Amino acid sequence: MLEVNNTIDSVPGFRVGSVDAGLRKQPAPDLALVVADQPGTAAGVFTTNRVKAAPVLISEARVQADPNHIRAVLINAACANACTGDQGLRNAEQTAAWVANAIGCKPESVLLMSTGVIGTQLPMDKMQQGISAASAALKPNGWHDASTAIMTTDTKPKRASVTTQDFTVAGIAKGAGMIAPNMATMLSVITTDVRVPADVLQQSLHKAVDLSFNRIVIDGDMSTNDTVLLLASGASGVEIRGSLMQSFDEALTAVCKALAQGIVRDGEGVTRFITLNVVGAQTPQEAHQIGNTIATSPLVKTAFYGGDANWGRILAAAGRAGVELDQTKLSLWYDELQLVANGTPLTYDEDRANARAGQPEVTVKLDLGRGSAEATIWTCDLSHDYVSINGHYRT
Amino acid sequence: MLEVNNTIDSVPGFRVGSVDAGLRKQPAPDLALVVADQPGTAAGVFTTNRVKAAPVLISEARVQADPNHIRAVLINAACANACTGDQGLRNAEQTAAWVANAIGCKPESVLLMSTGVIGTQLPMDKMQQGISAASAALKPNGWHDASTAIMTTDTKPKRASVTTQDFTVAGIAKGAGMIAPNMATMLSVITTDVRVPADVLQQSLHKAVDLSFNRIVIDGDMSTNDTVLLLASGASGVEIRGSLMQSFDEALTAVCKALAQGIVRDGEGVTRFITLNVVGAQTPQEAHQIGNTIATSPLVKTAFYGGDANWGRILAAAGRAGVELDQTKLSLWYDELQLVANGTPLTYDEDRANARAGQPEVTVKLDLGRGSAEATIWTCDLSHDYVSINGHYRT
Repeated sequence: MLEVNNTIDSVPGFRVGSVDAGLRKQPAPDLALVVADQPGTAAGVFTTNRVKAAPVLISEARVQADPNHIRAVLINAACANACTGDQGLRNAEQTAAWVANAIGCKPESVLLMSTGVIGTQLPMDKMQQGISAASAALKPNGWHDASTAIMTTDTKPKRASVTTQDFTVAGIAKGAGMIAPNMATMLSVITTDVRVPADVLQQSLHKAVDLSFNRIVIDGDMSTNDTVLLLASGASGVEIRGSLMQSFDEALTAVCKALAQGIVRDGEGVTRFITLNVVGAQTPQEAHQIGNTIATSPLVKTAFYGGDANWGRILAAAGRAGVELDQTKLSLWYDELQLVANGTPLTYDEDRANARAGQPEVTVKLDLGRGSAEATIWTCDLSHDYVSINGHYRT
Repeated sequence: MLEVNNTIDSVPGFRVGSVDAGLRKQPAPDLALVVADQPGTAAGVFTTNRVKAAPVLISEARVQADPNHIRAVLINAACANACTGDQGLRNAEQTAAWVANAIGCKPESVLLMSTGVIGTQLPMDKMQQGISAASAALKPNGWHDASTAIMTTDTKPKRASVTTQDFTVAGIAKGAGMIAPNMATMLSVITTDVRVPADVLQQSLHKAVDLSFNRIVIDGDMSTNDTVLLLASGASGVEIRGSLMQSFDEALTAVCKALAQGIVRDGEGVTRFITLNVVGAQTPQEAHQIGNTIATSPLVKTAFYGGDANWGRILAAAGRAGVELDQTKLSLWYDELQLVANGTPLTYDEDRANARAGQPEVTVKLDLGRGSAEATIWTCDLSHDYVSINGHYRT
């Protein structure tokens, strides 16, 4: 079993700098810069939203064009730079050029991530000064500060690292609201010291994201800015091939899972962490689809908030997921307590069921009775605080 | 322009009875019975949820098997009779048999509708007594009481009628939570005094539902129990054919729209009524799809609750709707105030925009810049009260 730490000491080949660039109303670090000492290999997974922020368009193109000479990732957590048109693209490119100038590389070697309000242009003066200050603040053990600098409505920083005898994989993430399957305003930078070809790195990242960030649901919304970037410095000299491939993939997946689950646990207004285990499906895809539909149902989520074992809402959500269910074959458990068999309720103690639904961590298992495939989704409840936070986010 | 009234005097050929059958904890009418004096013609639209309640399975089969001899609709608003297995089906059939016995017809001529908690069996003693009392209470002008008896978390009854020189179309509905496109825990009984072949009636109902009940979104959930039934008594002697066809369809659509919009206005915790007008689409389907995605977005809905013209969330929701949008062609208005052109924000007064978003009724127009098709969706905000109501629905 891999040990995943929620601290990051340092990752060979990388330095990190964070500063308060004054991008937000409240004074707090809001800009982070991750720099590889030498050109590194990069992989990226980006939002599938058709409305993509400028930093997403730029980073996606750069990772695709030349993933082998990436030097830096600049992250701002105040202005999404989405729906900002040509001006937004030019501004984003300019910030990358400032980073390139500061660390000595081509602008194309700099990647970008942003989160925050949509439709506002970057405050360029502050960005320029912030980039200058962040470049001057680069240090190997700057991860803790960086994980804090990228927070928006997050209440806790998300960090995860795995260190084996051969390599380190370590990442930071921010999440909170707008989190849906297939990414959300969810930013994550993961670094490692291995040497690995770009195409292999991209495959590993895709597999890891599919088992982690793409399995979490907070509110079903998907952001214009979602980005997960993975940078490999090669500083360990360890090449990922043969038997190391599997242990690298396991470490990467473990880091991504820890970050993803951390995002759900710290989701906006979250009071419960819910593991949805959909089993007995014909394919993993249909299990995933049903899990997502349950996880995005406001009625299911508010019932969990109320600590109400209102399993009928779970079955009703499953029934509208677009899968050809046979309702007479559905069975359902809250933790070890089975409530439904063959689509009908068993005799059970209502108070005991509600006590289960009211735990801080609940596992719901739904057996579709159709096959042997399954999928697990991590989600949360929908609380008064979620409404408060998102009803007044900009004020 | 058709005049739609929110009262119903009587519909020739029908009598209605409502009683407090003691199905709920609080004393209040909870059972309604609509009876046609002579066998009438019926049409129905039912939930597409794969988990269907017993009354849905029974009513759907009966309308399909013999739509020309329908005599009654029994509606209970306390027990959904969903996820109740064979026992639930037998119970539902028994209630129909009691109605049949009371009014003198075959059990197959009785249709059923239920709403309430899922997974609980009908309290059969109370149902039997209630049916007996409701049969004794039948009267032509019982619509007001019936519209009240079928309410659950509704705060207001929903009634609508259109009377022309040739015919009457009048209906009642209940809604409140779990309302999504393609039906929800949304029950509606519509009656008319025309004579019309069953297949024509079914077509008219489908068209009317597509333009009304299938255009409303409260929370995106879809119920196991959704049913819209249309009964034609023929008591007016007016046959629907030729030029009357169009005026009948218009009247039916107007009644359905009034009921559907009434459901949204009285949705759980609703503080704002939002009309989403998606224009410039290639097809009405894609406009509808984008409208639905916007209308189910918790971030969009909470922003409206907060009176925040956070249009970026609307564009972000549109972007994940599965339509190949070009983000540089999107334009957006709150009422007459344009905020976005070609995917980028115009210069506008933020306070003025928020004032628009904070009105009790707001129209948002989104132009996709792809074609000339459009769709309109009626939806609402997501408030603290929605969470309160659904976090503690069963307690």
